Amino acid sequence: MTSYDDVTRLEPGARERERHGAFDEGWMIGNAVNGGLVMATGLTALGQHLALDPDETTHHVDPVVLSAYFMTASAPGPFTVTTEVMRTGRKLSTGQISVLQQSDDGEPVERMRAIGSFGNLEHVDTVSQSSPPDLPPPECCVSAAEAPPSFLTNMRFLERLDLRLDPATAGWAVGKPSKQGVIRGWLRLADGRDPDTTMLMMALDALPPVAFDLGMFGWTPTLEFTGHIRRRPAPGWLLVSLASENVGGGLMEEDAKIWDSAGHLVAQSRQLCSYRMPPTSRPEPG
Amino acid sequence: MTSYDDVTRLEPGARERERHGAFDEGWMIGNAVNGGLVMATGLTALGQHLALDPDETTHHVDPVVLSAYFMTASAPGPFTVTTEVMRTGRKLSTGQISVLQQSDDGEPVERMRAIGSFGNLEHVDTVSQSSPPDLPPPECCVSAAEAPPSFLTNMRFLERLDLRLDPATAGWAVGKPSKQGVIRGWLRLADGRDPDTTMLMMALDALPPVAFDLGMFGWTPTLEFTGHIRRRPAPGWLLVSLASENVGGGLMEEDAKIWDSAGHLVAQSRQLCSYRMPPTSRPEPG
Repeated sequence: MTSYDDVTRLEPGARERERHGAFDEGWMIGNAVNGGLVMATGLTALGQHLALDPDETTHHVDPVVLSAYFMTASAPGPFTVTTEVMRTGRKLSTGQISVLQQSDDGEPVERMRAIGSFGNLEHVDTVSQSSPPDLPPPECCVSAAEAPPSFLTNMRFLERLDLRLDPATAGWAVGKPSKQGVIRGWLRLADGRDPDTTMLMMALDALPPVAFDLGMFGWTPTLEFTGHIRRRPAPGWLLVSLASENVGGGLMEEDAKIWDSAGHLVAQSRQLCSYRMPPTSRPEPG
Repeated sequence: MTSYDDVTRLEPGARERERHGAFDEGWMIGNAVNGGLVMATGLTALGQHLALDPDETTHHVDPVVLSAYFMTASAPGPFTVTTEVMRTGRKLSTGQISVLQQSDDGEPVERMRAIGSFGNLEHVDTVSQSSPPDLPPPECCVSAAEAPPSFLTNMRFLERLDLRLDPATAGWAVGKPSKQGVIRGWLRLADGRDPDTTMLMMALDALPPVAFDLGMFGWTPTLEFTGHIRRRPAPGWLLVSLASENVGGGLMEEDAKIWDSAGHLVAQSRQLCSYRMPPTSRPEPG
């Protein structure tokens, strides 16, 4: 099983702005590589490009914000990330990211384009923060590993995670969505690696789609995702909470918040997803 | 007084991807042109570029999502918008936008870079939506025009709007912020023009900063802004509600929601802002 560190490892390309890597099928969800992993990979490349900046006094080593647009589904196999440093500032440094793969006829196809900023989150005070929800401890939650094998076939990505869903928001897995538009759970990497600020961007997009809890079991591809990273996470479990209020016209938002094991809000995101299926009360057969 | 339509009017440039316009000082807030206006201008340019697409069957005339990164403050005077069509799809068409001005030495300086998608919001059903807050009617709210002249000097942009703040969330204007991180009000253009989907992107960033209600009266520049437009707004007043929960490390989020006069949620946004001033109980003297 490839680890998170294996799959986000990049090789330098011929130019300062170019890096190469490979996605593997162990990180797929449905028929695409998990978008959170694509974002984490792109951020890794931009961070490496920024680190080449001669003005090293900035120490902008933590991703702080990323806005990603998904144009085509990423496939297992080699990819190239190109990056552009747009601005190096006192507080943040900002750049652009493109993740590309070759089509069958050898033409480059853009999978994701994003703009993002790095800063330094070493010393962060909290003036105010969203309160974490009450959740049973991980050992009393529902492990994704207990899901029906037919479900996991389409969610190989879930094997890379140790995900424990709050039973109160896991009813959709047995055909009883709460219809509240809420999914909550504990998350860590299955290989035991502790979270960092780049991994948080993946964690914001790692849970099953909140649409499931609304009784919408079709494919809900992410069109746009923006994540804010607010703190370096403490080691251990992450508490992830998803919510959605606004659904209509074939589009819905999914909001995520993450607290670390010390109870600090460390990240939040909103994404705009597309849906086709109207709400129903039962998952499609795997 | 220049109208909203005057100030978002663009002239074609030498290339398909280039358009020209001018900001005027009537749309400034503090020492910069309002960021919402810069976004609306950029969207107008991308919409015009997409309309040139030979595949006119898409009819993607409504902005649906925009993620904007503000790199330098826009000044009154001429600007150029360059656009790139990244992808024309069935549901959405996506492109990139740069707004540029010339520095004193004649070099182009990028003010804002954004990625955004257009779609068609002519027929939109609502499956679920956030409930609008209870607000007194506009005639019982506090008009921004009643603000002290010293305040309006730095907020000339507010003269372009008819903004009526909910008295319950306007205490900061007299040194009594609620500290709840909430500002709500009714909004329309002062020239009587009705809202459309592009104008909504400006309206999401038109109210005084929510930081004021937290007792933070310093300058809170927007670093990143992402807005989702979900419906074409009905004519008349817009109800705008701002909230902020997560403040720390010199960064805060500001969330906005807008309902139209028919009670539909028509737009929502989140932005990441920078702050320097710790919370206090009194505005700085204008």
